[in-house]
Amino acid sequence: MEKKNIRFLLQYDGSRYDGWQKQGNTENTIQGRLEQVLSRLAGEPVEVFGAGRTDEGVHALGQVANARLVTDMTEREILDYVNRYLPDDILALRADRVPDRFHSRLNAAGKVYLYRIDMAEKSQVFQRRYIYTLGQTLDVEAMRQAAVYLTGTHDFRSFCAARRFRKPTVRTIQEIRISCEGSVVELRFGGDGFLYHMVRILTGTLIEVGQGKRTPESMTQILEAEDRDAAGFTAPARGLFLAEVLY
Amino acid sequence: MEKKNIRFLLQYDGSRYDGWQKQGNTENTIQGRLEQVLSRLAGEPVEVFGAGRTDEGVHALGQVANARLVTDMTEREILDYVNRYLPDDILALRADRVPDRFHSRLNAAGKVYLYRIDMAEKSQVFQRRYIYTLGQTLDVEAMRQAAVYLTGTHDFRSFCAARRFRKPTVRTIQEIRISCEGSVVELRFGGDGFLYHMVRILTGTLIEVGQGKRTPESMTQILEAEDRDAAGFTAPARGLFLAEVLY
Repeated sequence: MEKKNIRFLLQYDGSRYDGWQKQGNTENTIQGRLEQVLSRLAGEPVEVFGAGRTDEGVHALGQVANARLVTDMTEREILDYVNRYLPDDILALRADRVPDRFHSRLNAAGKVYLYRIDMAEKSQVFQRRYIYTLGQTLDVEAMRQAAVYLTGTHDFRSFCAARRFRKPTVRTIQEIRISCEGSVVELRFGGDGFLYHMVRILTGTLIEVGQGKRTPESMTQILEAEDRDAAGFTAPARGLFLAEVLY
Repeated sequence: MEKKNIRFLLQYDGSRYDGWQKQGNTENTIQGRLEQVLSRLAGEPVEVFGAGRTDEGVHALGQVANARLVTDMTEREILDYVNRYLPDDILALRADRVPDRFHSRLNAAGKVYLYRIDMAEKSQVFQRRYIYTLGQTLDVEAMRQAAVYLTGTHDFRSFCAARRFRKPTVRTIQEIRISCEGSVVELRFGGDGFLYHMVRILTGTLIEVGQGKRTPESMTQILEAEDRDAAGFTAPARGLFLAEVLY
């Protein structure tokens, strides 16, 4: 049997997991669950590579991961097998054979994240794990103005939670689109890559603009400060979704 | 302080509860949780009366309940207090003072239930607790034809799970509306009252019509049989919502 490189498109509810990535002993990660199922399928340990390392409690609408498997199964059989054994809060939408050199993270050209905020005073019962209930009206127009300053190529060190920077912190944000439907504000971030906690700190900072605590123009100073303390709070994980990985 | 009769409009995710009604020792019911909070508010045991006794795992978009409380608080203060102490899967949408004689169950003139079915093969990740994933295409037109036979005043004994009938089993269904959006089929039942498991057995029977296992016309024989075994399966609780109580 030959070794096949399989690319998975995944959806998950991150609520009860310690994030995507395996860390030390914890198997309670999305990567860990997928590796368990694929190792069982292949009859030997299988390593899974994910495009985005979503944090604890963050969800995915379109995470991409790949794994090399020795198996006779067709793509369809792999997909069915995986969905039969994965828990019901993780779903494989597709399983496709790809060239052996494909690596879901190293080949990713960009990612799209969504962040959902509810301005309504009452918390939502059925959406409560998938939205950040702010309970305050936001000035969405001011947030859109601020977003313009953040779009483009910048050093996003101020929007990164990691204290030690071994790697470059320059990133390009192609788009920050802010839409509104009823009491729900949705922020859509498209960029070539995002630093640790970057989308949640961008969101927290934009919320503070929407609350009138910061001006849209002050985004420039935050970027120039290259200091995490200059930016706003880290918005909670529950409102965040990895929506799409671009290749 | 005077005793006030307060009517609550409630929304809940029934997934982790043993239904609405307190049973023996279990406090893990919606009624039990609400009584705990209101007893704390009033400083004495408070009894809560609900309009519909939803089963284990059944949800509510608009349950109505009332309780008599000795309190100085305004309606608004009661609402805020209740929402502060209720778990995040139960929400009070309103708290209104009503005449002392009002009883949420005895005065109810009718109820509306919703049942949601997903015909798509893949299970839904974010809706998984709030929909029944059937994974099969249904003949919705046949289901609508069958619904006509079930609408009106009938003895619904065949659609009731209770084995002993101390009470009359004649009910009037004003409306069964079946709508379709994408892969989701939504059944809306409006009636003066529903027997134990009645909505779920009606739904299971209509699903069997949609699968071609029963004809629309056979609904007449099921009603006439006055025998639970003549009807279809009991659709799972997770797809069911008490949508509205009518007065």
